[in-house]
Amino acid sequence: MGDTVTGRDLGGVFVVLEGGDGAGKTTQSRLLDQWLTAEEIPHIMTYEPGDSWLGQRIRQLVLSPDSGPICSRAEALLYNADKAQHLDEVVIPALREGKVVVCDRYVDSTIAYQGAGRALDPDEVGQLARWATAGLVPDVTVLLDVDPCEGTGKIAAKDRLEAAGDEFHLRVRQHFLDLAAAHPQRYLVLNARNTRTQISEAIRHRVAGLLGR
Amino acid sequence: MGDTVTGRDLGGVFVVLEGGDGAGKTTQSRLLDQWLTAEEIPHIMTYEPGDSWLGQRIRQLVLSPDSGPICSRAEALLYNADKAQHLDEVVIPALREGKVVVCDRYVDSTIAYQGAGRALDPDEVGQLARWATAGLVPDVTVLLDVDPCEGTGKIAAKDRLEAAGDEFHLRVRQHFLDLAAAHPQRYLVLNARNTRTQISEAIRHRVAGLLGR
Repeated sequence: MGDTVTGRDLGGVFVVLEGGDGAGKTTQSRLLDQWLTAEEIPHIMTYEPGDSWLGQRIRQLVLSPDSGPICSRAEALLYNADKAQHLDEVVIPALREGKVVVCDRYVDSTIAYQGAGRALDPDEVGQLARWATAGLVPDVTVLLDVDPCEGTGKIAAKDRLEAAGDEFHLRVRQHFLDLAAAHPQRYLVLNARNTRTQISEAIRHRVAGLLGR
Repeated sequence: MGDTVTGRDLGGVFVVLEGGDGAGKTTQSRLLDQWLTAEEIPHIMTYEPGDSWLGQRIRQLVLSPDSGPICSRAEALLYNADKAQHLDEVVIPALREGKVVVCDRYVDSTIAYQGAGRALDPDEVGQLARWATAGLVPDVTVLLDVDPCEGTGKIAAKDRLEAAGDEFHLRVRQHFLDLAAAHPQRYLVLNARNTRTQISEAIRHRVAGLLGR
């Protein structure tokens, strides 16, 4: 469904952080924010799902304990409605103003998590997400890759894995790696077990390159 | 995205009523309900958008005056989430129980109204709706066709048209007619200016045929 457009095509730079839980996205997002601020580079920090008025309402709808059951397709469509509104309201206006937009999770998370759940065809989920986002792709997706059987940093990944199922998280990881392998020029895959300084420097280097610094 | 399946494939009969505002869908729906009840044919009467718990919440979200603006893609995705949940929760279970399901509006309304609005490509809207409904197509779609410039029955169509724009309603009508022309065997197109008795008899005849009567 249509062509792709990047953040730079719109006048800004669109940076996405992806990875499983416990990979360190929050930390790296904060470090990138600090660096962009120190360098006086106009930017916004945002996230999916939920960072628009509609997204907040959808999040309540999906997660509220007094909500009824939601079938897989309806859930995928709701998350994509959030995505469409988030782009229209938050991401695209900032890119058009020439800003760096740093987004915690984007299309790849939708594909990886929904695809790993196996209720829906990952290719169809991908098509849906690409339609919802009108083909807007990141200038770089930073994939913080972590082996879900090892656990990293402050979170004892193993505990959560035992609850949610090792295999599910292994499939999520594989989806992320497959997406990165399909478009290597648009990805920066980093081993999440490296030090936070090593990781943050690699991210800065890539973003600086995109800014022509 | 995948093959189609009909109501009869699932063990029931799936009847949809379509048409512009003021075409008489509500009246014909009531008459069909009365006939099915008199004939002791197990059936349910339902509608889109909104006839599931999720649909009610989405309807509130879209129509509430304290909601913010919703972009076209997000709106289309929300309406399709409603559609997916409505099928999963209401339509498919009833069809599997062998019932006649009579639904006021379905995929064609989504395509006709969104397509007529011109913000989105009707083909893409159609693909989205077919994915949301997992390819479930009605055994018959009754299209109550009315020329929006004439007005019918109790509603002074002209008044509303002047508010919403004649051209919009003419485009809606044309989308409905084009959809019917593409699959004539699955449609019953009726002139909404015929008498209500003529129309209801034509609908009964078609539904009776689908029931093997």
